Amino acid sequence: MYTEKVMKMKNNKKVKDLLNATTTLNDITVKGWVRTFRNNQFIALNDGSTIHNIQCVVDFENTSETVLKRITTGAALSISGNLVESKGAGQKYEVQVLQLEILGDSDAEKYPMQPKKHSLEFLRENAHLRVRTNAFGAIMRVRSTLSFAVHQYFQERGFFYVNTPIITGSDAEGAGEMFKVTALPFDKTPRTEEGKVNYKEDFFGKETNLTVSGQLEAETYAMALGQVYTFGPTFRAENSNTSRHLAEFWMIEPEVAFNDLDANMDLAEDFIKYVIKYTVEKCADDLKFLETRLLEEEKSKPQNERSEMSLMEKLNFVMENNFKRVTYTEAIDILRNSKPNKNKKFQYLIDEWGADLQSEHERFLVEKHFKCPVILFDYPAKIKAFYMRLNEDGKTVRAMDILFPGIGEIVGGSQREERYDVLVEKMKALGIDEEELWWYLDTRKFGTAVHSGFGLGFERLVLFVTGMTNIRDVIPFPRTPQNAEF
Amino acid sequence: MYTEKVMKMKNNKKVKDLLNATTTLNDITVKGWVRTFRNNQFIALNDGSTIHNIQCVVDFENTSETVLKRITTGAALSISGNLVESKGAGQKYEVQVLQLEILGDSDAEKYPMQPKKHSLEFLRENAHLRVRTNAFGAIMRVRSTLSFAVHQYFQERGFFYVNTPIITGSDAEGAGEMFKVTALPFDKTPRTEEGKVNYKEDFFGKETNLTVSGQLEAETYAMALGQVYTFGPTFRAENSNTSRHLAEFWMIEPEVAFNDLDANMDLAEDFIKYVIKYTVEKCADDLKFLETRLLEEEKSKPQNERSEMSLMEKLNFVMENNFKRVTYTEAIDILRNSKPNKNKKFQYLIDEWGADLQSEHERFLVEKHFKCPVILFDYPAKIKAFYMRLNEDGKTVRAMDILFPGIGEIVGGSQREERYDVLVEKMKALGIDEEELWWYLDTRKFGTAVHSGFGLGFERLVLFVTGMTNIRDVIPFPRTPQNAEF
Repeated sequence: MYTEKVMKMKNNKKVKDLLNATTTLNDITVKGWVRTFRNNQFIALNDGSTIHNIQCVVDFENTSETVLKRITTGAALSISGNLVESKGAGQKYEVQVLQLEILGDSDAEKYPMQPKKHSLEFLRENAHLRVRTNAFGAIMRVRSTLSFAVHQYFQERGFFYVNTPIITGSDAEGAGEMFKVTALPFDKTPRTEEGKVNYKEDFFGKETNLTVSGQLEAETYAMALGQVYTFGPTFRAENSNTSRHLAEFWMIEPEVAFNDLDANMDLAEDFIKYVIKYTVEKCADDLKFLETRLLEEEKSKPQNERSEMSLMEKLNFVMENNFKRVTYTEAIDILRNSKPNKNKKFQYLIDEWGADLQSEHERFLVEKHFKCPVILFDYPAKIKAFYMRLNEDGKTVRAMDILFPGIGEIVGGSQREERYDVLVEKMKALGIDEEELWWYLDTRKFGTAVHSGFGLGFERLVLFVTGMTNIRDVIPFPRTPQNAEF
Repeated sequence: MYTEKVMKMKNNKKVKDLLNATTTLNDITVKGWVRTFRNNQFIALNDGSTIHNIQCVVDFENTSETVLKRITTGAALSISGNLVESKGAGQKYEVQVLQLEILGDSDAEKYPMQPKKHSLEFLRENAHLRVRTNAFGAIMRVRSTLSFAVHQYFQERGFFYVNTPIITGSDAEGAGEMFKVTALPFDKTPRTEEGKVNYKEDFFGKETNLTVSGQLEAETYAMALGQVYTFGPTFRAENSNTSRHLAEFWMIEPEVAFNDLDANMDLAEDFIKYVIKYTVEKCADDLKFLETRLLEEEKSKPQNERSEMSLMEKLNFVMENNFKRVTYTEAIDILRNSKPNKNKKFQYLIDEWGADLQSEHERFLVEKHFKCPVILFDYPAKIKAFYMRLNEDGKTVRAMDILFPGIGEIVGGSQREERYDVLVEKMKALGIDEEELWWYLDTRKFGTAVHSGFGLGFERLVLFVTGMTNIRDVIPFPRTPQNAEF
């Protein structure tokens, strides 16, 4: 009765469609991969469309041993049959298999993705296969949904998507160490008469790097199109082997003409709430799985290190509560008088106004003191970038950082210095080449206006929404020091 | 009566909203940039939300000379007043100005974007300001809308967005010359004992490059999530100074498990039609402007070089007609017997089956012979990449290219070789390192299945939709040989 040859059926269905069916269906075909095969009879088939599997029931008495033996975890199958009401518990419908074709075998002894729990480190070493697991399938579907929510949020509000350059001739932004991009050889590198590398002979005729931010270019577009956003890869050549840093990560950078810092904070908060809400609605099944996963994981931790809230409670909390807005100066007061500061528990003790906040301070403010997302603003000019707008006090700038529980900084933004003279003075003080940024300065020469924007590290958002704890686990193929596999 | 100090009005409006208003409105504020100022009275104000300007009428008798003089092209203004019915022709509504603030001046003598026609080359040199012109505002709004249409098409159909790596340790894909990414210095480069560059001391511990395609990684995701797509930057370090090539461009690469080449062609055709249709509906005003622009431009050409169709006619033609599907073998027959071949007008004469098609041949097929978009398929294996599925004839592969009038190749795709043995044999024949692509080969070892995908060069699509002729004019900051300005 069963044949390995596929019968050409037009009625191809996704697992998701079958599970969401409202009636039984005849003569459907479903293709996917075996997750488990029980009792020579019950195939749990998954095709990536959902975290759930469809149960396919094989008439094993009329199926050859050879075929049955090839139904192993990871094998690709094409199954034709009828969607019928399930006699078993646990599912409403199941597929009564009439035809089964093995599309691709999977040697049970060699297949790395066994139906058991693997360590996250093992899965990172198999990043090309880990997306076949429940957890990583869920994470990557959530990531995709969050991405779309980003675009939809901005497009619905009249923002225009701008692709700022990845290869940049400018290294003035100063957001971090840069990777060199070159077509020159290390051997017999062309040299000038003075013996320096002759970048005029390089592909672009000058030194080029991978971008650390599209902000400066996005500003030029905001001053024409009004409201723009970028969403693209950015790079840091910093040797940070932490669970929160990647050498290559995706960043979202909206930039809005005529917005001041208050409007910028409103935008960031509204944006974050929107994309989380959208994803919670679209990815209910995946998030439910990830919530359970997190609960399981936390069982191995001591009681006092476990989260007080479940994943969904955390997401709901962010959506339903206002972010607390606090000036840097207020934050310093709170920190100076805090227990860990008085008891010298902080690694970096807070003594004077002007200190840069470390991760331990941010976590204290968010997780212990305010117990909610916090927007810190009006930072000392000295610890922030040259393009941020100087306040009337002459010592603080209109900067803001959004801090999230468990994540730390998720957004960094500012109102930009729109006054040509003030900007040039600041660049001079910091030794930033005016000639190199002639085009940036043009925006302040011709029709300048108040404007603001921020950068949101997309992977940190995915971390927060999925409840994962290592940033390497929320991007398909992570790039970190000593690792560019795949 | 007028004051330079802004009155805080909550009722901020975009120019687009005012032009689309259905009633008159009191006490609105609109902010934007002056396009023109006529008769000391009529400001054409634009804020980038639309190609159209709102006319703002100044009560010049009650406005100081000083302020009037500062209303110059490019100046940023905040205008408050009432939206009233216009007495003049050309617009339904206009703003009766009650308050006017100059936010940012624009020195009329120095501002590069004068209200006149600039050459495209001059505008490229001012890529940070060109988006303030009608044409580039329109192009970049169209580009943004097309981008969103891409995401919406795939997301609505259950595809998942995958961010494949930009920095890659693999150089086996062979789609083109690659840029090196490194943190090593050219001076005192670390060397091995044999005197070679010691990449173990580089950031990633190995040689790394900028990706030329995310396909191979996307395939690993398709074999888990079923249907995926990438949309990100890709790079070619090729010294091609043409109007169709960029060193940095954005590519869309869907990859679908269980799709054969026919399904792949169906997907590509349906996708292209959808995104064009979406954009035609959303960007009617911008496209109308670009259509007129193109007509003007073509007036300077000899009659026989002008398009037979207007921009909108071309877009409608693509949406309404089936793409012609032709095998490579049929195409060679057509070309061999064509007039330009017989009269030796082709630079590369078509003689034998197996020849690679040049741009002149593709243009002949599309523009002269079929006069519609053409999908060429089943190419000789020898001129195509290693991962394409070998046909039963043993000499052709299941490759397809989509050719567009005026653009040439806009899509390149294939059904992938899913058979492990055949793939390995091909890699061996081409000297591609199996060990380097161990993870790619794993997809054929464990649960392999028929699958297909394609790559679409996003800028070529934007070229086609906007009617522009140089690819440097459809990306904000183009990267080409000897050019990485901004």
